[in-house]
Amino acid sequence: MQRIHPLEGDTVRVGLLGFGTVGSSFAEVLAAQAEAGVRITRVFNRGVERKRLHAKATFVPRDAVWTERVEEVLGAADVDVVVELMGGLDPAEGWLRSALQAGKHVVTANKQLIAFRGGELFALAAERGVQLLYGAAVAGGVPVIPGVAQGLCGDEVTRISGILNGTCNFILSSMETGAEYGEALSRAQAAGYAEADPSADVDGLDARAKLCILARLALHAEIDPEEIPAETIARIAAVDFAYAKELGCTLRQVSRAELQDGMVSASVGPMLAPRSSPIAWSHGTQNMVVTSGRFGGDVVFSGQGAGGHPTAVAVLSDVRAIAEKSAQVRLSARRMKVKGDAVAPHYLRFVVADEPGIVAAIAGVLARHGVNIDCLLQHRGYPAERLPFVITTEPCPSSTVRRAVAEMAAMRFMVQPPLCLRMLIVNDTERD
Amino acid sequence: MQRIHPLEGDTVRVGLLGFGTVGSSFAEVLAAQAEAGVRITRVFNRGVERKRLHAKATFVPRDAVWTERVEEVLGAADVDVVVELMGGLDPAEGWLRSALQAGKHVVTANKQLIAFRGGELFALAAERGVQLLYGAAVAGGVPVIPGVAQGLCGDEVTRISGILNGTCNFILSSMETGAEYGEALSRAQAAGYAEADPSADVDGLDARAKLCILARLALHAEIDPEEIPAETIARIAAVDFAYAKELGCTLRQVSRAELQDGMVSASVGPMLAPRSSPIAWSHGTQNMVVTSGRFGGDVVFSGQGAGGHPTAVAVLSDVRAIAEKSAQVRLSARRMKVKGDAVAPHYLRFVVADEPGIVAAIAGVLARHGVNIDCLLQHRGYPAERLPFVITTEPCPSSTVRRAVAEMAAMRFMVQPPLCLRMLIVNDTERD
Repeated sequence: MQRIHPLEGDTVRVGLLGFGTVGSSFAEVLAAQAEAGVRITRVFNRGVERKRLHAKATFVPRDAVWTERVEEVLGAADVDVVVELMGGLDPAEGWLRSALQAGKHVVTANKQLIAFRGGELFALAAERGVQLLYGAAVAGGVPVIPGVAQGLCGDEVTRISGILNGTCNFILSSMETGAEYGEALSRAQAAGYAEADPSADVDGLDARAKLCILARLALHAEIDPEEIPAETIARIAAVDFAYAKELGCTLRQVSRAELQDGMVSASVGPMLAPRSSPIAWSHGTQNMVVTSGRFGGDVVFSGQGAGGHPTAVAVLSDVRAIAEKSAQVRLSARRMKVKGDAVAPHYLRFVVADEPGIVAAIAGVLARHGVNIDCLLQHRGYPAERLPFVITTEPCPSSTVRRAVAEMAAMRFMVQPPLCLRMLIVNDTERD
Repeated sequence: MQRIHPLEGDTVRVGLLGFGTVGSSFAEVLAAQAEAGVRITRVFNRGVERKRLHAKATFVPRDAVWTERVEEVLGAADVDVVVELMGGLDPAEGWLRSALQAGKHVVTANKQLIAFRGGELFALAAERGVQLLYGAAVAGGVPVIPGVAQGLCGDEVTRISGILNGTCNFILSSMETGAEYGEALSRAQAAGYAEADPSADVDGLDARAKLCILARLALHAEIDPEEIPAETIARIAAVDFAYAKELGCTLRQVSRAELQDGMVSASVGPMLAPRSSPIAWSHGTQNMVVTSGRFGGDVVFSGQGAGGHPTAVAVLSDVRAIAEKSAQVRLSARRMKVKGDAVAPHYLRFVVADEPGIVAAIAGVLARHGVNIDCLLQHRGYPAERLPFVITTEPCPSSTVRRAVAEMAAMRFMVQPPLCLRMLIVNDTERD
């Protein structure tokens, strides 16, 4: 059981690290809750004079101290909870260690830090008798962290599937209506949903960190984010949505982790999801997490995964939990290896310069690897010199089908390397 | 802030009231969690000798005391938490008062008790410095109570919509594929989802109690369940699904509560929901709750709302929260009046013995009440002496349209009283 560090008085005093989008929204949301029992006493940011002119600076109490020296927050006597909204591993890690050492509770939205260093930081917090909460680090305003920690601790969760990156979801759900990838990415950038360099989002690195955090919490598995295979969504084309539709599916960036034989089967990347599955419900920048429990079955959490206000709600909820002296239910997690491989049907999309014998050649390679073909789809109306067509396979290990595909990539009629995606099957999301 | 009654030692000792479906599943789920730090020490039930032969009685520790005398549990020195799974207001209320008075924490799945007497019982628990948790009382295995209590306490929730009764959802989602009401009800009864007397479910009384519990927690509004207008689903017919489909909608029993001008606008009953809305996603016995927050937007929670195992997960999660000395974040709720009226578009379905002038007569009544017609739908292929057709209205107060409909009911060509349902509109579920 966990001891809780006693708080003095009835108001919890917050030292805020970072007054950007989330930090200023936190001040705003807090100001709207008169009875929250939470007060900002210190704000750290670079360029404090400029930050004090921020439109939302008026939501910070007038007597709060603004500083450019982080140590004036981390150990301050008038700070009970350090709220870290800077992001990144360094220097955030050192700051949070100092805060925990100084006996401060910590609330953070820093997914990379919790994914890569969470295990050690939780141990330090436990040793110092303080709380380290991170509800904003996964799925922003969707209360999946407290929902799982408090509400599903009575179950044995065996699998997590989710839409953990709003940028990818925005791009892929835009492509559902016919846009090509580049066009959808530009639209996401114009709307402020994607960075100028979108790789952390589209290549799955952001989702991978969040998946590790969920795996530790829900599966009690401590895994290394870098062991999780992550695939980019950048190779998905409009034609894939047309073929997916024919298969009763759509495409989403799916993050999955499942306990299997003492390992965690995990991956992040674009997959085909049946249109009837919860995963296909999420549109735009929404996030979604589906947990599968041994006793409670599937539970879906969905909502806005990012943005100043939703993230600020998650941060303030954590601070209030500390104010109410609420300890999160926590179970120990054990270090586990990641298995990137999974048995599933696969979707193979080829773009070829048409000539006789292509299907026979491809089928021959698949047969040699023991991969059975489920169906072949070829729509009309494409140019013969860049002809896209699709083969789906019966369930087989990803590693096997990838070996077969690698072999095909060298075939002279291939205009580009084949695209190979896993297909979520309905009993895959409904199985006990 | 809340004090937490200290627990002795590292194991929380449970006195179980009721060893039926949920109670025995609780023992089973607990037995599967070796490290839960929770142990059943006493079990109360009528006919204890018979209960001890229950297949799942083997999941209860051998040294636990089985008794038919409830007072041997309520005040027992070896009980830290009383888990009440009997249901109903009386005698459960007296028992839980005794347990709280004796300084026991209480976990209950009793929705009627929490809906009707929750306010007083929470006050008593606070006075005695103990916890009263009830995560299983709403939506069974879906962690909406801890999700809202812990994860959304940083937001101002202004509206709740939900599918809170799995029986109604099973019946209505079965009717989507063409079944008539009676047939779908029989199927629900055969599958064990509906009672021989289904009225508590189909007439909305069960959902109404759950809506009150959510209103107290999320809207901080203490409302009287009996003030909430509840309408039966028993008048819905297969033809309504056909017309709803043409309107891009389906039908669900929807429970809604929204803060409006210092009152709570609330209702329970069948409504038309757009097929694209989260409400329409839920099938079979699933439950769903959608909260709308001022800052965080819409959050969806969905999963299995009933059944022994999912409910037991919610109960055990609450017991474990107590074991971890976790106090739920709680805000005071204030007593509010219920406004049953709402402005919305309405769906009016008539069954008439056809004759000239019917539409003119109906349109005349609507015009006299200031209700504008949006569209008129009439499918072919029905007998002229029992002709169903539909009029939808532009948004107007339910009370107005109901007065108009009451006037029409007496018209000589009406074969049965018109059916009048609210239509959820998309910006109704997406509005900030």
